[in-house]
Amino acid sequence: MNLSEMQQLLEPLFPGLIGVMLVEVTPERVLAEMEVRSDLCTTGGILHGGACVAFADTLGAIGTLVNLSPGCTTTTTDSSTKFIAAAKIGATVRGESVALHRGQTTMVWQTSVTGANGRLCAVVTQTQLVLRPREGRQT
Amino acid sequence: MNLSEMQQLLEPLFPGLIGVMLVEVTPERVLAEMEVRSDLCTTGGILHGGACVAFADTLGAIGTLVNLSPGCTTTTTDSSTKFIAAAKIGATVRGESVALHRGQTTMVWQTSVTGANGRLCAVVTQTQLVLRPREGRQT
Amino acid sequence: MNLSEMQQLLEPLFPGLIGVMLVEVTPERVLAEMEVRSDLCTTGGILHGGACVAFADTLGAIGTLVNLSPGCTTTTTDSSTKFIAAAKIGATVRGESVALHRGQTTMVWQTSVTGANGRLCAVVTQTQLVLRPREGRQT
Amino acid sequence: MNLSEMQQLLEPLFPGLIGVMLVEVTPERVLAEMEVRSDLCTTGGILHGGACVAFADTLGAIGTLVNLSPGCTTTTTDSSTKFIAAAKIGATVRGESVALHRGQTTMVWQTSVTGANGRLCAVVTQTQLVLRPREGRQT
Repeated sequence: MNLSEMQQLLEPLFPGLIGVMLVEVTPERVLAEMEVRSDLCTTGGILHGGACVAFADTLGAIGTLVNLSPGCTTTTTDSSTKFIAAAKIGATVRGESVALHRGQTTMVWQTSVTGANGRLCAVVTQTQLVLRPREGRQT
Repeated sequence: MNLSEMQQLLEPLFPGLIGVMLVEVTPERVLAEMEVRSDLCTTGGILHGGACVAFADTLGAIGTLVNLSPGCTTTTTDSSTKFIAAAKIGATVRGESVALHRGQTTMVWQTSVTGANGRLCAVVTQTQLVLRPREGRQT
Repeated sequence: MNLSEMQQLLEPLFPGLIGVMLVEVTPERVLAEMEVRSDLCTTGGILHGGACVAFADTLGAIGTLVNLSPGCTTTTTDSSTKFIAAAKIGATVRGESVALHRGQTTMVWQTSVTGANGRLCAVVTQTQLVLRPREGRQT
Repeated sequence: MNLSEMQQLLEPLFPGLIGVMLVEVTPERVLAEMEVRSDLCTTGGILHGGACVAFADTLGAIGTLVNLSPGCTTTTTDSSTKFIAAAKIGATVRGESVALHRGQTTMVWQTSVTGANGRLCAVVTQTQLVLRPREGRQT
């Protein structure tokens, strides 16, 4: 699946609703952008923490998907975020997700979300469980 | 501010976009519901983890707001989520947020998100920094 | 294995070094105590955060162990702690660990650590991966 | 305070108990080593997760301390760990802690713990609250 096909897959889903725009997807790194629209904000015209996490979680999940062996699926078991600075309405945030670990049972991806001038807004670290063909989805 | 006024405040913001419906807001507990719409899902017709976190983070932030002393504001510094079970498209998830700590400098809120039959889907624990009037927003 | 045998198993290990004393172990709940010795403190005569996490992680791991099917083992994949109040030197902290989830693939345990007068000092939430007989330890 | 004085300060405290050996302390980075002694292990001869977190938390706290303005103190509010691989008894683990954020109200430090051959064992991310002279310790 190429970048454009992945983007089309996202459109009707939650990443489409919040405007995740994929920029680069490789097994080593996922890059994307998202405009801080007013309907992604909390009071005060700043990006809602939940929108920021949703943006980042999407990238880490895609990073995991492109590393899965055939027939495997994945589910997020944990996600933890450190919020560092606010991203303002009208800005475009950039997310860069890299793997801290790509194992047979789990993968760990960390996404840095940066705002204007490359300022770090949040760091999201998530654990993805790798589910082999015969295993169910239930954790 | 009563429940209806709070709900109106949320409508143009991110919680409005994802359909957070407040059910109860007291200093001890925040309850809300959200329908698992197709545009809140990831592939496979299940609630996107990011939408689940966004739902929960909203409740914890509201819980903090109603406990703030006059003039104070708050910002989330940390949020961590354990994902436990999937919530399916068409279901309505329910969130219950309770305070683990309500201090002068930080508050900690924990939100349980449950799906059909009260099954636990996720637990989100967040730390809110309390900012006093003269302090800036910058963390 | 009864409580006394479990305690003996812990003695030569890290939980023994820090003085974890098991009080109750059932599949639903693990209770233990630990004295805040001077060599468990950080500067200022308060319990070191790492000692607090180590105490709690031990309880959640034991809770998982007593719920495992025969032949299964477990490993911690994630642990997140919210520190709420300091525990002072000379006090005895109490930990109560309960399961948020006991599934076939993962278990999630949450431990509340309380100090003098039952004051909440920290909440530790950890994810335990359940490894079936033929799976390796490598995550 | 130089490295040797810092090490002496740690000796009677919890970092001393577990054998944290400082290697380098600068405002940008803290490096240390710790031998995986048998009394730091869990069953199976591998480093107890709690000992690993305690090692890492110590480094992040020291990194914060050397960045504080005069009169300020710090306390950890959050710590989250992703466990990736086991460190075996007899090995020496190495921790490298770097700042993701050094602000006036909070600092965020991330510590990578590596074992034999530089293999990543765990990543610990912690938030440190900066307390100004007139503020109390109570969070």
